[in-house]
Order: sequence, then C-alpha cells, then structure tokens
Amino acid sequence: MTYSVEWRGDHVRLLDQRLLPYDEHYLELTSSNQVADAIRNMTVRGAPAIGVAAAYGVVLAALKAAPDRRVDASRDAIAALGRTRPTAVNLFAALDRMRRVLDSARSAERLVESLAQTAVSIHQEEIDASASISRLGASLIPEKATVLTHCNAGTIATAAHGTALGVIVEAHRQGKLERAITTETRPLLQGARLTAWELVRAGVPTTLITDSMVGHLMRTTRIDCVLVGADRIAANGDVANKIGTYTIAVLARTHHVPFYVAAPGSSVDLSLRSGSEIEIEQRDSTEVATFAGRPVAADGVDFWNPAFDVTPRRLITAIVTERGILMAPSKNGLRMIVGCPGERRK
Amino acid sequence: MTYSVEWRGDHVRLLDQRLLPYDEHYLELTSSNQVADAIRNMTVRGAPAIGVAAAYGVVLAALKAAPDRRVDASRDAIAALGRTRPTAVNLFAALDRMRRVLDSARSAERLVESLAQTAVSIHQEEIDASASISRLGASLIPEKATVLTHCNAGTIATAAHGTALGVIVEAHRQGKLERAITTETRPLLQGARLTAWELVRAGVPTTLITDSMVGHLMRTTRIDCVLVGADRIAANGDVANKIGTYTIAVLARTHHVPFYVAAPGSSVDLSLRSGSEIEIEQRDSTEVATFAGRPVAADGVDFWNPAFDVTPRRLITAIVTERGILMAPSKNGLRMIVGCPGERRK
Repeated sequence: MTYSVEWRGDHVRLLDQRLLPYDEHYLELTSSNQVADAIRNMTVRGAPAIGVAAAYGVVLAALKAAPDRRVDASRDAIAALGRTRPTAVNLFAALDRMRRVLDSARSAERLVESLAQTAVSIHQEEIDASASISRLGASLIPEKATVLTHCNAGTIATAAHGTALGVIVEAHRQGKLERAITTETRPLLQGARLTAWELVRAGVPTTLITDSMVGHLMRTTRIDCVLVGADRIAANGDVANKIGTYTIAVLARTHHVPFYVAAPGSSVDLSLRSGSEIEIEQRDSTEVATFAGRPVAADGVDFWNPAFDVTPRRLITAIVTERGILMAPSKNGLRMIVGCPGERRK
Repeated sequence: MTYSVEWRGDHVRLLDQRLLPYDEHYLELTSSNQVADAIRNMTVRGAPAIGVAAAYGVVLAALKAAPDRRVDASRDAIAALGRTRPTAVNLFAALDRMRRVLDSARSAERLVESLAQTAVSIHQEEIDASASISRLGASLIPEKATVLTHCNAGTIATAAHGTALGVIVEAHRQGKLERAITTETRPLLQGARLTAWELVRAGVPTTLITDSMVGHLMRTTRIDCVLVGADRIAANGDVANKIGTYTIAVLARTHHVPFYVAAPGSSVDLSLRSGSEIEIEQRDSTEVATFAGRPVAADGVDFWNPAFDVTPRRLITAIVTERGILMAPSKNGLRMIVGCPGERRK
C-alpha cells in the first residue's frame, strides 16, 4: 500500500501527488507552514488525506516551539492550516479536534503528546473508515460489473484503502468487477494520473476516458454504477465533489445508472442545510490554461476554474459511510449516520 | 479572415491547425496523397473544410497525371480521400460531386478544368452557406446573450465565417453578445486552441472552461443557448458532432437551455434514417494518453477514443442551415431544407 501521509515522530512524510504517475517521490516536512503549503499546492490532496496531514501539521508546530510558546504556536498553525483550502470539511473537522486538545491542555509538556495522540487517532479512524466503506460499498456492486469513477478517491486521497476506489478494489478482490472506467478529470488529471495508477497497481482492468465521453459511454455501453468520493456533504445529503461530478450525476440519472457516493462521516457537515451553502474553491487559471504544464489556450481568453461542484441529493442513489449505507439521502438519515452535531466529532 | 483552405491554381494552401494557437503556419500541398494525409492527421479539420480540401485534392491528382492516366488517377484519389475519416459527410458529398464530373467527362484535356471549377464551386458554396447560417442563426440570439459552444465550428472548420462561431461572431457584430464560453474540448483541445483563438481575434469576450464544468456552469449561471456545429445529420435530425456534444445537450435539456445546431445542408445525409447509423470514428489512444507528446496517463491503463457522439433530435431545439431554421427537427423538415436525395447534391 502507498500512503499519502505518514507520521515519523518528528516529521511528516508526504507522497508528492503532483508528480504521479511518473515519479513516486516523498517529501519530509518538519513545519506546519510546509504542511500548509503542501495542502495549498496539492502535494497532498483528497479530503480525508488533507485532514490527516493538517492534524500532523499542528503537531509539528507544537514540537518546534519552545514550551512557553507552544500553545500559541499551535493555535497559529491551526489558523494557517484552516486557510489553505475551503471546500473539504475533513480539514476543519481535524483542526477542530486539535483545537479542543489545546483548549483542554493542562501543561505544555504533555501538550505535544496529546496533540500527537489525537492526530494519530484521526489518522487511524480514517484508515478504519476507509476499510469499512470499502466493505459496505462492495456489497452494492453486482457481478461482472463495469463501474465509472471520477477524480481520485483512493488510497492516496485518504489515509489508506480509499473510499470510491476502496470499494472498487474490494469488489475486484471479491471477483465481482469486470472493469473500472475513470475519467481523466481535468484540469489536474487526478483520474489519469492518480486513479489510473492506483487501479492498475491493484490489478483492476481499467479504461481511461476524457470527461467529455461520459454521456456517449452511458448511452452506448452498459455502466452498472457510478462511484465517487466527496469533499463535503451537507445536512440534506447534497454532495460537493470534484468539478464534473454533477455532470456525471445528471447523465447517470438520464441513463438510469445508480450513482453512489462513498465518504467517511468526517465529510458530513450538519451545520450546512444544503449544498448551496458549500463554498466552492476557485483555483488559479493556469490549471485550465495549461495542460500537463504546457500552455494550450489562445492568448486573450478568460478562464473559469471552480474546483468542485454540488450534486443535489435527488441525483444520489446512496451514500456509503463507515457506519452504513444511506439510500435516498435525507437529513435525518445523515444525522443517524454521523451522530448529532455535538457528538459528531469525538 | 484566416482561411483553412485556399486554392492557388497548382497547389492547395492549408492552415496547419495542429499548431494553433501558438504557430500560424501554412502548408503548400501538391498531391492528393498529401491532402489525404492532412485530413487524416487533422492538419485540416472541421467537416466543411475537409470536404473543400478533398475536392482540391482530386484536382491535384488530375493535374499531376499524364492525360491518359488522368481519369484513373482522379478515381484513385477519390477513393483514397474517402478512406481518411469516416464521420463527416461533407467529405463524401464533395467526393461524390467530383466523381460525377469524372463520370460525365468527355475529354482528358477539359477534365482538369471541370474538376477545378467544381471544386471552386464547392468551396464558394460553403463560404456562402456559412454567411447565410451566420445571419439566420444570429436571429436566434437574444440581447446581452451568454452563449456556450464546443469544439471548433469556426472560420477554420469551414471555408470561411464558420457555422456556430459564424453565428456567434455575427451576433457580436450586431451588439447582442455579452460573452461566449467555450469548452476546451478534449482530447484535441479544439476549443482551447482554435475556438478561443478565433473568438479573441474577432473581439468576442470569451471564457474557456474544461469540458467537466458545463453542468456546474448551467446550474449556477445563466446560459442563453448552446451553439454547436455538426459532422453529420441523419434524416430524422439526429446529429453527430464532436465527442462531448451529447453530454452538453443532456445538460442543456436539464437546465432548459436552448440547444442549436448550425450546419450547412452538405452535412445532412438523408440516406441514414437515424443517428444510430452514423459511423463514429475511433481515433488513436495517444490522443487521450498524451498531450502534445507528453504522456499524462499511468502505464497499463486502456483507452477509449470515440471522436464523435450522437445527439438525438429530441434534445435539439433547432437546426440552422443556409436554407432556413428548422425548429424541432424532423425528417420531412430536413428533406425540405436540403431537397430530395436525387437533387440534393448539384
């Protein structure tokens, strides 16, 4: 298994996902600022992985500070890490837990240990969540299935196993999967670079298509279901995920293809009533203006670069979390899945 | 105006569309084989432009041959040019007309002249058709319009003016257009490289988006209509166009956005009852696996590369041809627009 994030006691080891699939390179980060940069520039990406990385970033800030500066340094790190990327709620869920450790800390000496234990718990919970999601989600996959996925919700988007890809790989392990099809996922090509890489390494027969081919694919071939991850799920079951997800959901509904979202409970934000309240990150235009680093667009044109879109719950067949499968997502259902807001983040 | 194809009496001048937008380079071709290669490798592309180029390719074959070989050389050229790309019917329409000149030719001396005259007529008719289409289509565009287009149906896809882009530029000239939005159009990026280039040069405020953004765009902003070209239109009004068009048509229907197809009568193939009979060209996987020679996909993955898809007529609000606007396309309507099969190609 390839890990997106690893804790090494005094540094964080991150897989540099910008370099895949052609270079498998790891960075060793020793400060929270380095971790914040890595989140912002998408060295580490994928909602659950971002949360885990951020938690370790806070530990690094505490580690490096003198005892009398430790609490302030940790609070500063939490604030800085929270400013990196706005859409994935797992980031804020992890930072909230780290903040509560600070709030209840009784001594600077024990603080580093407490922060580290919490970060490791966050990490382990994501690993366990991915494993449960993979198992539960695989139960939805029929025999001889052809499954479509988008972006990268795999081992490297999470702490291990993955969500959507965890389901796919588990279904493959159970002998149920004939083929996985992944969109390339412009502008950053997580599908072409990351998902194709993970699935091929896992031995899954995989086909790569451009984002524009999904309609023709569904109209002319049999797709048994769509499986995607999520960056944030609102209380009513609306899902924010990588740009292009909503388009696929509309096409899936049009062609009667089940549309499944696989995501840990830490992706759910019960404080948002619906998807219209989810902040959609706008990223730099160079991501659209270039392709694999080379300029492609004519000069003088303007750009638009929303990194996510919102899929309304009515287009979602089911949400698979580590606690269960929620068919026809609704607010009460999500609350049962993830617990009441006060209890939600332990 | 930039011309995709020009006849210079003893050679054909082609704009090399593979090099845009960064190089504006022209090739001077002197043989039908060179023209066939240029069509196959998409030096020249766009359904109407391909037809015009092929017609001149036949003239080149006749020009270069000794008088007693002229008819055979021309027939061979027609056959070879007809094997280049299967989907755009304009190619076959043009070659049919050149073949009829051969069939009725009375002397080898007059043959070159007759072929050249016919090719020039085909060319002029496409220019006139584009101008009419631009004018008629612009009447569909409301004031302060934001219009979405896909691929490149502009001056360089045709002999001049363009079809979908001809409408956009004419609407802009009339002061009705606030903004044009173009998808980049993977895998070959005709939207990013060609359409963005043409529209910026025509002074149209233009925004470039990835193909995956169309759903989010329509859901969150006002799009007044979609305008695309066509590579082949079946008798019932089903339209084959660049891959991704069908996806956009489904999204347009979902969001109540009018969907217009602008194409010359030479795009209509009354011999095909419906879109299911249109042959969809499959192109080399390197187009998906790479960009400009740079690999982007993980090793070991398979590819799919249909270059076109079919939009069923029920998703099309109107087809604009040089003879008129056909609302709610139907077989009788198209027959009236383009004439009966026997008369269709004069």
